[in-house]
Parts: sequence; structure tokens; C-alpha cells
Amino acid sequence: MHYKLALIGFGNVARSLAKLLIRKQDLLKSKYDVTFSFTGISTGSHGYAVNPNGLDIQKALELVESKQSISALSVLEVNSSLDVINNSQADVIFENSPVNTQTGQPALDHIRSALKLGMHAITANKGPVVHGYGELTVLAASMGKMFRHESTVLGGAPVFSVMREAFPLAELESFKGIFNATTNVILSLMENGEAYDDAVKYAQSIGLAETDPTNDVDGWDAAIKVAALVTVLWDTPMTPQQVNPTGIRGITPEMIARAKADGKRYKLVCSAEKVGNKIEASVSPQLVDSTSPLYGMMNSSTGITFRTDTILDYSIVLSEKPGMKGGPVETAYGLFADFVNIVK
Amino acid sequence: MHYKLALIGFGNVARSLAKLLIRKQDLLKSKYDVTFSFTGISTGSHGYAVNPNGLDIQKALELVESKQSISALSVLEVNSSLDVINNSQADVIFENSPVNTQTGQPALDHIRSALKLGMHAITANKGPVVHGYGELTVLAASMGKMFRHESTVLGGAPVFSVMREAFPLAELESFKGIFNATTNVILSLMENGEAYDDAVKYAQSIGLAETDPTNDVDGWDAAIKVAALVTVLWDTPMTPQQVNPTGIRGITPEMIARAKADGKRYKLVCSAEKVGNKIEASVSPQLVDSTSPLYGMMNSSTGITFRTDTILDYSIVLSEKPGMKGGPVETAYGLFADFVNIVK
Repeated sequence: MHYKLALIGFGNVARSLAKLLIRKQDLLKSKYDVTFSFTGISTGSHGYAVNPNGLDIQKALELVESKQSISALSVLEVNSSLDVINNSQADVIFENSPVNTQTGQPALDHIRSALKLGMHAITANKGPVVHGYGELTVLAASMGKMFRHESTVLGGAPVFSVMREAFPLAELESFKGIFNATTNVILSLMENGEAYDDAVKYAQSIGLAETDPTNDVDGWDAAIKVAALVTVLWDTPMTPQQVNPTGIRGITPEMIARAKADGKRYKLVCSAEKVGNKIEASVSPQLVDSTSPLYGMMNSSTGITFRTDTILDYSIVLSEKPGMKGGPVETAYGLFADFVNIVK
Repeated sequence: MHYKLALIGFGNVARSLAKLLIRKQDLLKSKYDVTFSFTGISTGSHGYAVNPNGLDIQKALELVESKQSISALSVLEVNSSLDVINNSQADVIFENSPVNTQTGQPALDHIRSALKLGMHAITANKGPVVHGYGELTVLAASMGKMFRHESTVLGGAPVFSVMREAFPLAELESFKGIFNATTNVILSLMENGEAYDDAVKYAQSIGLAETDPTNDVDGWDAAIKVAALVTVLWDTPMTPQQVNPTGIRGITPEMIARAKADGKRYKLVCSAEKVGNKIEASVSPQLVDSTSPLYGMMNSSTGITFRTDTILDYSIVLSEKPGMKGGPVETAYGLFADFVNIVK
């Protein structure tokens, strides 16, 4: 079976995905008899390209990585992501374009269009999950296709597929986790005596925090991940506004020193719990002690603890690997895993 | 679709499984249109029963829990587990009878017979995995059936299904974990100043360690779990003898105190790594520091860290829940999850 793929968004993650697909193409062929070609690529500032017979992906990677346009590769004139989707004849789109997390756009429109054309849709963007999960899932099912989003919460580390495949008919009672690496790095550094501002600067210097760190330090990145998990795992729509996060700006060096003296730590704890028919969710700095699975998640490590009616406290942790590169490669793997699980 | 089930072995875990199946029967019906009945039960010292039209499972539970024989429930004369398998007309057997870990028997014969009769086979016994995984998997496939064993390593917490379903085409490079709860409880207590003998007695008093704790403290329980993981995940047969474990008897209070002063801990570390075409595996007490995901696994918590070529350090932790009952219920869930994943 041959799959035509369209890449909507061609940043670090999407390019890592293209390279991973190429690296794994022999395995895909030998294990699942699956082959693929890239028939549409949409970039932020290096143009658009479509070729239903297959684009030269190596050339596209070279062009974008040397900051040149890919439009010369196109066999049709295409001027937007929707143009690419409509003309790619793709079987699967990977939506990883810059997204407005308040609205989920334009990712939501891209995915909607692709599903209506009978494509599977896979994204690492949290926006369309939070703003369109129910609608997109129903639309996908009506077309006999799938909408998948493994890479939205813990980088590309399996979380959604674990709950979907490995916990059949288990009832999720609650989850608790650390979802934002930037704030976890900042709190870890402050525990070692660094000032808040210096810790933020360090997180920026390693490419973790944005120039404006608001989204991380005020808890909004964590809140949208909580909202995405609640929306999917309990099939109950929730917005980051409903999570109403409290960030880490109120945590002083004195509070951290006192906690440390007590053998405790402040963590930006993300949690949700089913209480009757309602889901109560929160993001806020909390003291955790050494018996908590969250206590050992330091620096850029993230993780989640699930409590179900059958398996009690089951944690998934994606650890920081000093000196080893995770990041885009791990996020790309989540997209790749979604693809393999759809086509296998 | 209706499934006839045979329970070979009817101890704590199998009875928990029967209760879990009953508790989840409405969900199984509504979500997957699956119904079931129990057509064969084999106990260690309370007899055997077979009824291809369905046994009264509540009655069987009552009888065994009040130490009475179930043989009056049988419509045929059956006098062994193989008799039960041969006459149950079951679609699925759950093999949880006492096993000789050196040979995998009699579980191996039970599973072999069941597969040859066209049944799916599910077990929480490590013996048949270590001594028969390759053969049983090939035999199952030749019959269009499945052999599953989720509950063999971390209680019933999903491990094998996570690697199988959530890590498609990832290459496993290594794993490292804590698989034996008894030794972890002992080492945790010794860190708090308890003597080794008192710690062993405590582990026995809570039903974790056997009267003869050799299998745990000398590392054999951990080694058979390492062997099972290597055998399945790398499809490479390995025995506990090849793992050649070192247990915790050589760890002195002085060593533990020195480690604690250095911010480290002794753990009975289970590990395996692919080196070229060979798998190197070990079980031995090792010093771990606070950056290790194993450091925080205290008391009866267990867990594993996988390193793959795409997702680097991904850990699964089953935490101790003080005052909450895991144990047989969690192991039963692993068997249940195998069943649901086969029939769904």
C-alpha cells in the first residue's frame, strides 16, 4: 500500500519527521508493506509545493535548510496551505503549522479540509485538539479516517496511545503530572540557588523558553495540555481558560529554600480528577514530597501519573538526557507512530 | 460474539480476574459486543469443574473461598488441568497455576495443549514466557490465535502492550528497571536503619516475601523478569541462568549509610542492552543517584526505563499506594487487558 503524504508546516518537527520516515522506510516496507511519497509541502516563509507524483523530499529539505524557497519543485501554482491540501491528492496530512492556541486556527481549518477530502490527519498542535477534538473525531469517523495527536502532550512520548491501547475498559479516575519543561527547569535552577530572572534567561538560552516566557511561566502551556488530555481521555471538552492556571511567578527563593529544608519541592502540578460527572482540573505550583512520582522529575523531565479503577498509580516519565538531543526528534516520533498505527 | 473461558489455576489472581470480568461485563457488551461464560475451572486443592454451557462462577468463587471443592459443579468427570482444557470447549484459557520456574511446567504443557485446540492463551506466569515464548508464539500464529502475557513483569501494569502498540518500529536499545518489590522494600527499610533480618521479616509479614526469601533476595525473581523481557522485546531467547543475578545479601548497613551520605541509594537494578547483535543482561545491586528515574522508586514501587532510537528515556512506574490495595487486582487487570485486546 502506497501513501501520499502532505506536510502542512515544515519547521524543525516536520523536517525531523521527514528524515525519520526516510530512515525507517525499509522497515515500513518490510514489516507492513507500506511505501510513501511526499506530494505536498507548505512552509511558513519558503513557499509551497505540490506534486501528486511525489516531490523530491531531499531537495525540499536542502532548500529550506539553506533558507531558499521550495516553490520551484511544484508542478502546480499553489499559494496557501489549503491550496496544498486541495491539490496534493494526499492520503495523510501532518499538520504542524504555527497555530493560534486561542482558536486552534488555521490548523483546525487545515485538518477539517483534509478530513473532508478523505485524508487521515495527524498533528502535534494542541490547538485543534482543544478546539475541535469532538468535531474532528466525528468527521474523521464519518469518512472512515482517523485524527491523531500523540505528540501534543509529552513531546512525542506515547501517552494517548498507551491509554487507548494498553488500558482497555479501564476507568480513568485522575491524572497528575508535570507537563511544562521550561517552568520545571526554572524551579530546578532556583532550588540550586539561582535567581528567577537568571533561570528564565538560562531556559531561553537553551531554546526552551520563548523571548516572552509568559505562556510557560503563567501556566498557559501546561493548561492547554491539561485541556487536551481531559478533552480526549474523558471525551469532555475543556478549554485552557476553564483550567484557569496559576503560574510560578509567585514562588520566591525563600519558599523554595523552606521547602528544600523540609525535603519537599515546588512543582508546577497539572492535575485533573473525575468527581461525579464533572472533571475538576488545575495547574498550580504545589509542594510535593519525595513519595510523589513527580518529586524526581527534575530539569526538563516531564511526566504524568494516571490513577484508574484497576491499575492504581501508573506513571509515564520522559526524562531529561543530559547531553542527548530529544526535542524535535521525539516529537517527530509521535507523529510517525500515529502514522504507523493508522496504516499498519 | 460469545467467548468461553477456562481458568487453569484459581488462586487470588484468577479469582480477582473472574470478579473483574463480572464487574466489567456490561462495558464489554456495550463497547465491543462481547459476552463470556466460564466453562472450565482447575484449582490446586479444590477440584476441577467443566460445563461447556457455563459454570456458575459465583458459586465456584464461594466454594473455593470457603475452602470447599468445586467438583460438584462439573457436568463431566475431570481430574486434571489437561482434562479441564480438553473438555471445556473454551475459546480462551487463562493459565495461572503454580509453575516451576526452572522448566515452565506444567504451564507450558497447558498452554501448548490449549493453543493446539484453537484457544487463545493468556498467562501471568513468567515460566512459559521464558521457556516457550518462541514456540508458543509460532504455534499460536499457526492456529490464528494469540499468546499473551502482560502480567508477567510489573504486576498487571502495561509494559509489553506499550512497547508493542505505542512504540511502532522503534528500536529498543536498552532497558533498566526495578522489578522485584520485596528487595526494594528491604533496601528501603535498611535505608531507614532497619536490620536486614528485620526488613525480610517485615516483607514476609505483609505477604510480599515467601517464607524462604531466596528467590527474591538472590535476584532470581528479577532475573526471570529480565529474561522474559529480553525474550519477548528482542525476540531473543534468554534464561534466568544466563542473566546470572547477584542478589542483595552482600549489601551491608554500612554500605547503605555511606551511599545515603553521598545522596545515593542501592537498588537491585535489572538491565539489558543490545550491543551489536548480542544482548547483555544483568541483575545486581547498584548505586543510583537522584538523577536516575530509579532513585525515586521506593518500597514496593517498581518500574522500567526504556531507551529507544527515537524516544530516549521513557519510564513506566507502578508506584506503591500506601493504604490502597494493588496486588492481585492489578495482576488481574493485565490478564483482562490481554483478553480485551484479543477480542476487541
